[in-house]
Amino acid sequence: MKTVFTAEAVERLKQKLKNNHVDIHLLSGGTQTNLTAISAFLRPHEAAIAANTGHILVHETGAIEATGHKVISIEVNDGKLTPWNIKSALDIHTDDEHMVKPKLVYISNPTEIGSIYTKSELEQVSSFCQANNLILFIDGARLGSALCSGKNDLELPDFVRLADAFYIGGKKNGALLGEALVIIKDSLKEDFRFHMKQKGALMAKGRLLGIQFLELFKGDLYFELARHANKMAGQLSEAIRAMGYPFFIDSPSNQIFPIFPNRVIEQLEKNYAFYVWSKVDDAHSSIRLVTSWATKEEAVASFIEDLKKLTEPKNAWHN
Amino acid sequence: MKTVFTAEAVERLKQKLKNNHVDIHLLSGGTQTNLTAISAFLRPHEAAIAANTGHILVHETGAIEATGHKVISIEVNDGKLTPWNIKSALDIHTDDEHMVKPKLVYISNPTEIGSIYTKSELEQVSSFCQANNLILFIDGARLGSALCSGKNDLELPDFVRLADAFYIGGKKNGALLGEALVIIKDSLKEDFRFHMKQKGALMAKGRLLGIQFLELFKGDLYFELARHANKMAGQLSEAIRAMGYPFFIDSPSNQIFPIFPNRVIEQLEKNYAFYVWSKVDDAHSSIRLVTSWATKEEAVASFIEDLKKLTEPKNAWHN
Amino acid sequence: MKTVFTAEAVERLKQKLKNNHVDIHLLSGGTQTNLTAISAFLRPHEAAIAANTGHILVHETGAIEATGHKVISIEVNDGKLTPWNIKSALDIHTDDEHMVKPKLVYISNPTEIGSIYTKSELEQVSSFCQANNLILFIDGARLGSALCSGKNDLELPDFVRLADAFYIGGKKNGALLGEALVIIKDSLKEDFRFHMKQKGALMAKGRLLGIQFLELFKGDLYFELARHANKMAGQLSEAIRAMGYPFFIDSPSNQIFPIFPNRVIEQLEKNYAFYVWSKVDDAHSSIRLVTSWATKEEAVASFIEDLKKLTEPKNAWHN
Amino acid sequence: MKTVFTAEAVERLKQKLKNNHVDIHLLSGGTQTNLTAISAFLRPHEAAIAANTGHILVHETGAIEATGHKVISIEVNDGKLTPWNIKSALDIHTDDEHMVKPKLVYISNPTEIGSIYTKSELEQVSSFCQANNLILFIDGARLGSALCSGKNDLELPDFVRLADAFYIGGKKNGALLGEALVIIKDSLKEDFRFHMKQKGALMAKGRLLGIQFLELFKGDLYFELARHANKMAGQLSEAIRAMGYPFFIDSPSNQIFPIFPNRVIEQLEKNYAFYVWSKVDDAHSSIRLVTSWATKEEAVASFIEDLKKLTEPKNAWHN
Repeated sequence: MKTVFTAEAVERLKQKLKNNHVDIHLLSGGTQTNLTAISAFLRPHEAAIAANTGHILVHETGAIEATGHKVISIEVNDGKLTPWNIKSALDIHTDDEHMVKPKLVYISNPTEIGSIYTKSELEQVSSFCQANNLILFIDGARLGSALCSGKNDLELPDFVRLADAFYIGGKKNGALLGEALVIIKDSLKEDFRFHMKQKGALMAKGRLLGIQFLELFKGDLYFELARHANKMAGQLSEAIRAMGYPFFIDSPSNQIFPIFPNRVIEQLEKNYAFYVWSKVDDAHSSIRLVTSWATKEEAVASFIEDLKKLTEPKNAWHN
Repeated sequence: MKTVFTAEAVERLKQKLKNNHVDIHLLSGGTQTNLTAISAFLRPHEAAIAANTGHILVHETGAIEATGHKVISIEVNDGKLTPWNIKSALDIHTDDEHMVKPKLVYISNPTEIGSIYTKSELEQVSSFCQANNLILFIDGARLGSALCSGKNDLELPDFVRLADAFYIGGKKNGALLGEALVIIKDSLKEDFRFHMKQKGALMAKGRLLGIQFLELFKGDLYFELARHANKMAGQLSEAIRAMGYPFFIDSPSNQIFPIFPNRVIEQLEKNYAFYVWSKVDDAHSSIRLVTSWATKEEAVASFIEDLKKLTEPKNAWHN
Repeated sequence: MKTVFTAEAVERLKQKLKNNHVDIHLLSGGTQTNLTAISAFLRPHEAAIAANTGHILVHETGAIEATGHKVISIEVNDGKLTPWNIKSALDIHTDDEHMVKPKLVYISNPTEIGSIYTKSELEQVSSFCQANNLILFIDGARLGSALCSGKNDLELPDFVRLADAFYIGGKKNGALLGEALVIIKDSLKEDFRFHMKQKGALMAKGRLLGIQFLELFKGDLYFELARHANKMAGQLSEAIRAMGYPFFIDSPSNQIFPIFPNRVIEQLEKNYAFYVWSKVDDAHSSIRLVTSWATKEEAVASFIEDLKKLTEPKNAWHN
Repeated sequence: MKTVFTAEAVERLKQKLKNNHVDIHLLSGGTQTNLTAISAFLRPHEAAIAANTGHILVHETGAIEATGHKVISIEVNDGKLTPWNIKSALDIHTDDEHMVKPKLVYISNPTEIGSIYTKSELEQVSSFCQANNLILFIDGARLGSALCSGKNDLELPDFVRLADAFYIGGKKNGALLGEALVIIKDSLKEDFRFHMKQKGALMAKGRLLGIQFLELFKGDLYFELARHANKMAGQLSEAIRAMGYPFFIDSPSNQIFPIFPNRVIEQLEKNYAFYVWSKVDDAHSSIRLVTSWATKEEAVASFIEDLKKLTEPKNAWHN
């Protein structure tokens, strides 16, 4: 039973998507959405394809495999899938019977390393999926940040046009909880709420989710919050770059990955919470800085100030 | 990472349980808690035993089976398991290899039809489980109502003493969402948060759950809310009984099951939302009335008033 | 890759089935066939319906549940499903979302207690399934015995006409191993060998299975073996009935269930291997006697002789 | 119920293993053994680690994932795991809760590309597993070939000493079907036959498996057959090397991987059945040649003869 709040939220989302035929379901979190959708969409012998950085591949405790499905990993440098690297996965799964059948392409926008898809890139992936009878499923846990990035040329209705299913993340963009899953392809819609209940994803008080999305999409709030997060990330990037530090990847969204000397990282860790992302060499590592709708300008300024104190004047990198 | 709110809520719950050695995890709903706990506790060939009315048996879209485990049904009249009926399930699963191995006993308190366990009954079930190497798992989605029932003689610490794991339901007792799972048996504690993440039950903003339980158990709020729900159910029961209507089962909690002529039910349905529980004969059915912390005294009075108007003076049953 | 032997066996089976459009797969045993087929045919939220005596319900260590699906049990006395009792299961699964969706009807012919379906009964079940969009799947692990029973009026092509999938058991009718699964409904055929491989059911040396069925169906061997088993069971039944013993169920196939005083059973157990099927009262139980293609006439005669010695002249039952 | 044949086969295997405390189960094939054992050994959040060439990773249609478990892939060149590359997988799975917990190391001997483990290598892997609380599981589908290789220094009892469970492949070494799974670690033994039944791996006529192993291990037959297969592979290798062709990998067992010009491969395919293993450059590929107990010396000679005719006198590689 959808509550009034949820019904209204769904109505509003359909307006933003400029499409009345999609099915929209509100779930509590990203892992829950991924596992419920992917297991509902696939038959037992079918597999998902994801970039090696894909959230479902490493950071969800095998949630997809726990529903019985293999996730095929594709090594990429920038977190993004293309027709060419998807095809490479198809090419090694040609042995009927003895191998899983790749059936669903999972991409994240922005990716787990902050990069975003351009309209042209997404169109290419979408065409390839359609031509190869693959379901295109887009993890939009951080979609707001992608859509509000300076380098973005996609709009919400584009996702309806290009994906078979995708979701609009609330939780990482100001909501207490909640992801809005949009199912476009008709054959994927049937009985979806059964799958939600079976996976523990049907909330008794659904209005808790409905109200989140109602408020986020009443006016421009969802995008305002995302723009703020991106702006804070931009200020950080600019200042870090000005000090001469390189980046692991050039990210236009609210996750950035600067590379610092390890001794700088050790000092920063005393006052700031972040992940050390990857080792670059014995003396340097990249870290992940994530800004949000709640990040204060003063916090950014203070981080930059602290970093400056830790940075030698001439050449940061060669410390 | 447990937030401060969650850590405090857990601390408070441990005080109420008078036990510092239990593990407490906050999950969002009952189905999610049941499927995460049961699949974490059992090996692939092990099964759960439940009364035929058990929530996991019929109302969770096969959530337990979806994790690979059979639920063995025991026919009972009052929703409750006893050493004798549990033993009947063990007795038909004696064929090594060809049958599942019953390993976990699932009971609900109150049961799905409103009955509650006495201390003596629960002690008997607990002893039997221990003697037979069975895990005793108690679904307490409505535990507040049981504990505040006039017929109850159990207290929270009794559950720690008698169960291997149980949960304290927040969602059906005033919280926006949330169940507090208490794991007592040491061997069931290991790695539990891995299972939560894998099943999509680890909330990014865990404080949403922590705050609910913090407020409910700060003072006496949890019990106040439950007492109110029970009181409203009691007023309904008393008035309905006074009008001469029988009950499907004598329930001391906040779910009651009066039996009405079908034509009365049809009239009531116009103004009130309830389930028709079961057909009694061609002209009569039982319905389920659930009161809550939010049920207003006026609403109860109005229901009684309306029922009176629909009731013939002499003998309600023989209409 | 199907071997020559397997291809030939499949060809021969298609001739016996008088149908060239079915898909036929050879698997090693009944549990393997049941779990591979049912999990391939159902989506995650869909369930199978079976009589309470159904092999998948009790004697396969939860194999179906281990693939994620609930098996709904229907209490029956004679092991058989009818449109009426199947409907009773549908009637309690009307709550969208919160309950599994019954989708496949599993019947065994002969049933696990030796009864068989008449053509008219199977037509009724088949029509009901078709009208209600249910898959009809027939476990024929002992099909030979049913087809060769004196009370049978079904032929192999009838199963193609009435079922969506069924199998012809080799293992319990003289083969070393092997069940021939026949898939009739087109939508169930796709990618079936992927499911076989995934469940460990694709034999490297498939000819081992092919040769079994080739020999069984070259001439009339399959039916000869079944007729012999039935004949031996008939001789046993007749003699036991003549001595005045009642039967738990009147079985026309190669499993019979006579009721004996417990002291007689204890004596018989010294020389014969059989299951005690069920307790009738404190002094009597039914036992299951299964004859096979390999049962010798002398063994039957000796059993009857021994039983006579244990039987009081006047009234066997009242001993 | 183990048959007499099976009991005898198990007895004989225990003698060959020089250990009376192991549990031995006979299953029909490799995929079935892998999926039954691994799903029995692991809890839901635990994962297997395998080399990227591992059979469970690519050639079993996601059988392990279908039981709910992730298989972590490690890129290696020679098909073999070492403490160092296993450690690399552990190092990226340090995030409690959000990642699966690596728990079982799967290796094959010989590997899927024909290489074999030395005693020293296996001891290192075994020690590392023990030190890190990892289960060591060895796929011995082709174990005979490894043990009879000229470069082997392992004996059957070494596997009992070094592995937690392993199996001795019958099917690829002359048996009609059958793998003998040996469970050494006590905690992995409990209830194993329940898992076999649940996965459809318990054969009704177990003697079919028992007889295979009884005959193979009565005298020296198992090793004779393996030696013959290796000898045939050795004759092929020697002749191919003498003609100047390189190899994809130097394999001492009964699978060899010579590299030929594509035009040579096309000609060979007309008369011989083999897999093209991998593309080396635009004009060359490696193929997989597998010899067996049944490969005739004349067939090897004829292959060599045919290859000679296709080979230019001077420099095979540069054709």
